[in-house]
Amino acid sequence: MLSEKKDENDFHEIHISDAVNISKKSFVMMAGPCAAESRDQVMRTAEELVKLGIKVFRAGCFKPRTDPYAFQGSGEEGLKWLAEVRDQFGMKIISEVSNFTNFKIVEQYTDIIQIGAKSMYDHSLLIGSGKSAKPILIKRGFSATIDEYLRMTEYILVNGNGNVILCERGIRTFETASRFTLDLCGTAVMQDRVNLPLILDPSHAVGISRFVPKLALACAAFDCEGLIIEVHCNPSEALCDKNQALTLQQYKSLYAKVKEIAEINGRTVV
Amino acid sequence: MLSEKKDENDFHEIHISDAVNISKKSFVMMAGPCAAESRDQVMRTAEELVKLGIKVFRAGCFKPRTDPYAFQGSGEEGLKWLAEVRDQFGMKIISEVSNFTNFKIVEQYTDIIQIGAKSMYDHSLLIGSGKSAKPILIKRGFSATIDEYLRMTEYILVNGNGNVILCERGIRTFETASRFTLDLCGTAVMQDRVNLPLILDPSHAVGISRFVPKLALACAAFDCEGLIIEVHCNPSEALCDKNQALTLQQYKSLYAKVKEIAEINGRTVV
Amino acid sequence: MLSEKKDENDFHEIHISDAVNISKKSFVMMAGPCAAESRDQVMRTAEELVKLGIKVFRAGCFKPRTDPYAFQGSGEEGLKWLAEVRDQFGMKIISEVSNFTNFKIVEQYTDIIQIGAKSMYDHSLLIGSGKSAKPILIKRGFSATIDEYLRMTEYILVNGNGNVILCERGIRTFETASRFTLDLCGTAVMQDRVNLPLILDPSHAVGISRFVPKLALACAAFDCEGLIIEVHCNPSEALCDKNQALTLQQYKSLYAKVKEIAEINGRTVV
Amino acid sequence: MLSEKKDENDFHEIHISDAVNISKKSFVMMAGPCAAESRDQVMRTAEELVKLGIKVFRAGCFKPRTDPYAFQGSGEEGLKWLAEVRDQFGMKIISEVSNFTNFKIVEQYTDIIQIGAKSMYDHSLLIGSGKSAKPILIKRGFSATIDEYLRMTEYILVNGNGNVILCERGIRTFETASRFTLDLCGTAVMQDRVNLPLILDPSHAVGISRFVPKLALACAAFDCEGLIIEVHCNPSEALCDKNQALTLQQYKSLYAKVKEIAEINGRTVV
Repeated sequence: MLSEKKDENDFHEIHISDAVNISKKSFVMMAGPCAAESRDQVMRTAEELVKLGIKVFRAGCFKPRTDPYAFQGSGEEGLKWLAEVRDQFGMKIISEVSNFTNFKIVEQYTDIIQIGAKSMYDHSLLIGSGKSAKPILIKRGFSATIDEYLRMTEYILVNGNGNVILCERGIRTFETASRFTLDLCGTAVMQDRVNLPLILDPSHAVGISRFVPKLALACAAFDCEGLIIEVHCNPSEALCDKNQALTLQQYKSLYAKVKEIAEINGRTVV
Repeated sequence: MLSEKKDENDFHEIHISDAVNISKKSFVMMAGPCAAESRDQVMRTAEELVKLGIKVFRAGCFKPRTDPYAFQGSGEEGLKWLAEVRDQFGMKIISEVSNFTNFKIVEQYTDIIQIGAKSMYDHSLLIGSGKSAKPILIKRGFSATIDEYLRMTEYILVNGNGNVILCERGIRTFETASRFTLDLCGTAVMQDRVNLPLILDPSHAVGISRFVPKLALACAAFDCEGLIIEVHCNPSEALCDKNQALTLQQYKSLYAKVKEIAEINGRTVV
Repeated sequence: MLSEKKDENDFHEIHISDAVNISKKSFVMMAGPCAAESRDQVMRTAEELVKLGIKVFRAGCFKPRTDPYAFQGSGEEGLKWLAEVRDQFGMKIISEVSNFTNFKIVEQYTDIIQIGAKSMYDHSLLIGSGKSAKPILIKRGFSATIDEYLRMTEYILVNGNGNVILCERGIRTFETASRFTLDLCGTAVMQDRVNLPLILDPSHAVGISRFVPKLALACAAFDCEGLIIEVHCNPSEALCDKNQALTLQQYKSLYAKVKEIAEINGRTVV
Repeated sequence: MLSEKKDENDFHEIHISDAVNISKKSFVMMAGPCAAESRDQVMRTAEELVKLGIKVFRAGCFKPRTDPYAFQGSGEEGLKWLAEVRDQFGMKIISEVSNFTNFKIVEQYTDIIQIGAKSMYDHSLLIGSGKSAKPILIKRGFSATIDEYLRMTEYILVNGNGNVILCERGIRTFETASRFTLDLCGTAVMQDRVNLPLILDPSHAVGISRFVPKLALACAAFDCEGLIIEVHCNPSEALCDKNQALTLQQYKSLYAKVKEIAEINGRTVV
C-alpha cells in the first residue's frame, strides 16, 4: 500500500496554510457546528472561535441523514457562508461531501474535503477525491475494520492525491450507553502501519456533549495530529446533532487543557 | 413510516413477471454468479440455471471492491450479456448499482435494481431509486440496525417507488470464523414491523461455499419470500468471491430440498 | 483438541436413555420452563409435554440473574420436583448449574447437567464437569468466539468426560431489536471442526416468544441434533424470562412442523 | 441501586493505606506482572517498581486461562511471594480470584481482591465478595453492557461491602487489530451514573505492549482514579500475556508523563 510506513519516522505532513501545517509537532483544533444552518449561526460561531485561535472551521452543508423527514442541509448557500468565514476571519474551511453528485461544489468552496463515515465505501467519491488537488479528510466507517479502512483510503492515494487525513469517529459495538465507541486501541495499531496524519472526533463518538471534554482530553494525550469537535453558538437550537455540540464556553475551557496536554507530547496547538 | 404494517395480513406483493410474483405464497430463487466475468461464463451459468427452473438471474457488473487492485467489474458490456440472458432464456435480471454514477445504465438493462450493503446509506442512490419505475432490492448494511435500515429504505418509498424488496445478508460481529453473521433474530423483528417482502442471502453471510446449503435451508424454513444465492459454472476460477459460490451441482441438490421446505410453509418455489 | 473431527463422518453419539440417543439420525426436542417455580407449574407443564412425546424436560433451579433483586431460583426444592417429573412421566431431566457451589446437588438430580452461557469461562465448573459421569450441555458464552468456546469445552474433555453437547444460544451484537443474535454462520463452521453434537436454543437467542417458532424451524432445517425451547403452562405469570416462553399450544403446532423438517434432513424427532 | 450518584460531587472514597486513598484528588498506579511466576520474578519486579514509587503491586496466582494446556498459575505459593512483597517493600497487594473455590485463600493474602472480566457474572463470587471486609476491584466483562456491569456489581454492595472499585479493560468488538477495544465512551456514561472509583486497564485492552503507553496517557487524561498496568522484569520470558507487558524501562518513562497529565486534572499520583 502507498500509505505504508517505511520506518519509525516516516510521516506525510500536510500543509493547509502558513499557520496550519499538519505534522508531528502540531496539534490542529478543527471546530464548528455540525451543520451550517443560517448565515447568522455560522458567522457568530466562527467569530467566537477565531478569537480563541481556531484556524480550521468545520460545518456540513450536505447532511446525509438517516431520517428522510429530517433537515437535509443548506447546500450551496451554506457553502457560501463558509466562504465568507474564510474571507472575513482567515480561517480554513472543511466541509463534508455526501456523495459524488455534490463533490464538485464542495470542492470549490472548501480547503479540506471531508468524506463522512457513511460514505467511506463510495468508490465514485474516493476516485473523485483521488483526482482532486485538495486535502481529503476521510472518516473511518463505523463498522469498517482498520484493514478495510486503509484499503478504501488507498483508492484516493492510487488515483493521485497523497494528502489524506485519517479520522476515527467511533465504531458500532454492543454498547448503546454512548452513541458509538471511540476505538483508540485499533487506531493505535493503525498509526503504527501508515504514515498518514490522524485526527480524532470525540463528538460523534460519544454523542453526548457533557462527555465530549473528557474524551477530547484523552484524545489529546493519545498523541494524534488533532481533534475535530462540534461547537455551536446555541446547541439547544441546533437542527442537527444538538445533543453532542459543545457551547462556546465549554469549548474554551477544553481548549486550554488540550493545549497543556499537547505540550506534554511535544506539540503546539494550531 | 410508509412501510409500516397496518395489520397481521398487510403485505406488499411485487409483480416481477407472469411467472414471478413475490407474495406470501411464493418463494423466489434468485441465482447467478457474483460478477459477470465474460459472455461465456454468464451464458453457461444461465443455461444451466434455467434448466432447473430458475427465473431470476443475478450477476454484478459494477463491483465496489474493498481492494483497489482487485477486479472492478465488466461495466456496461456485462449488462449487455445479462440482457442476452433475458432474451435467450426468458429470465428476469437483477444487478447491482454501486453508486449514482451508474444508476441509469443499470436501470436500463435490469428488471430489479440491487442496492448493495455498502451503498445502503447513499442518499443520491436512494432518492434516484425512489424515482425509478423498477423494483429495488436493497440490502441491509452490515452494521445497520434494523431501525436505520428501515429509515434509509423510507427514502425510496417517500420518493415514489413502493416496490422495495428487503434483503438481509449478514451483519458484522466479533465472530470472524464466518465472513458475516446472518441475523435471523433481528430480521424476524423486522418482518413483524413492515409489509415489504424479504429475501435472504446466505452466500454473503457465511462466505464459505460448503456452508451455504445448510444456511439456505435454515432461511427457507424461516419463512421469507426467497433466497439470492451465488452460483458459478466454475467457482475455482471466479474473479470475485470465489470461496462462496456454489457449483451448479451443489445448487441443484440444494434446490430440491428448498422446494420441500418451502412447501411446509405453504409456498411454491418460483 | 480432543473434540477435533477426524473425518467427515466422525461424530460422538451420546446415549441419554433407550428412547433418546443423540445421533445424526435423531432430533432431540428438549423443552420446559425457564425456571422451576412451583411443584404445580412444573408438573402441569411436564404433563402436557409428555403427551406430545417430549422426552427431555428442562427447568432451572439455580438462576444466575443479572438483577440482584430478581427471583434467584427454587434451589434443591425445585430439583426434587424435577425428580418427580422423571419418576412420574419417565422424562429425562436437564437443569443448570450456576457455579461450583451447586454442582454436586444439580448433578445428583439431573440426567444432563447444563452449564449456562455466563458460566462458560468458569474453570472450577468445567473441571468438575470433566470428572462427572453425566453428559454436559455447555452453552456458548454470548461473547465467546467459536475458538474460545471449543477451547473452554476442552477443559471438560481433558478431565475425562467425553459426553459434551454444544449449544448455541445467541451472541451479543450491535443489534438490540432482538435479545441476542443466533449465530448460525459461526455454528456451521464449528460443526465442521468438531465431532460433538449441537443443540440450538432459539428461545434465548431472540428472546421474544412470537418469533421463537420461525427461528426454531430455521434451526431444524439447519440440521443440528435438536432444540432446547422454553415452554410454560402460563407464560404471562412466569417469574423468569416471561417474554420468551411459548404456550403449550404454540409449542404443539411448532412441534408438528419441526417433525416434517427434521425428516427432510433424514432425522427422527425424539 | 446503592451505587447511584446522588449529586455531582457524590463519590465513594476508598482507603487502602495511609499512602493510598482512592479519591478525586489521587491517581493510583497499580502495576506488576500478569502472573506470579517465581519468587525471583516477583521480587525483582517489585523491587524496581517500589523505587519508582509504586504502592500497589499486582500479580495473578490463579489464572483462568482459555487454553487448558497453558500455565494455570502458581496458586497459594504465589500468594506467599506477594505477602513477602508486602512485608519487604511495604506495597499493598491486589490479586485475582478466579472462582469461589479460591476466594478464601486469595482474600487471606491480599489487600484488594480482584474479580476478573470472565468472572463478572459469577454470583457465588459476587455474594462472597459482598461479605468480605476487603475492597473489591471488579473488572467489566468484555461483553457486558454498562447496565449489566452495574447490576452485577450491585450484588457486592447489597451483600454488605461498599468498597467496590470499577475497572474497564476493553470490550469485544468486530475489530481484531487489537486484542479488545477500550470503551472510554461507555465508561464516561458510567462515571456519570455511579459514585464508585474507576481504574482503567490499558494493558488488557490493547494487548500489545508497544501501544500500552499511548493508551495509558489517554486514560490518565480521561480523568479516572488510576491505572492498572502489566509490567514484567523480562517480558519476553513471561509465562502469560507476554505480548502486553511493559519492560521496567518503558513503564518508568510512561510513569513520568502520567504524573504530568494527572496534575493537569488536579490529581496526585500515588
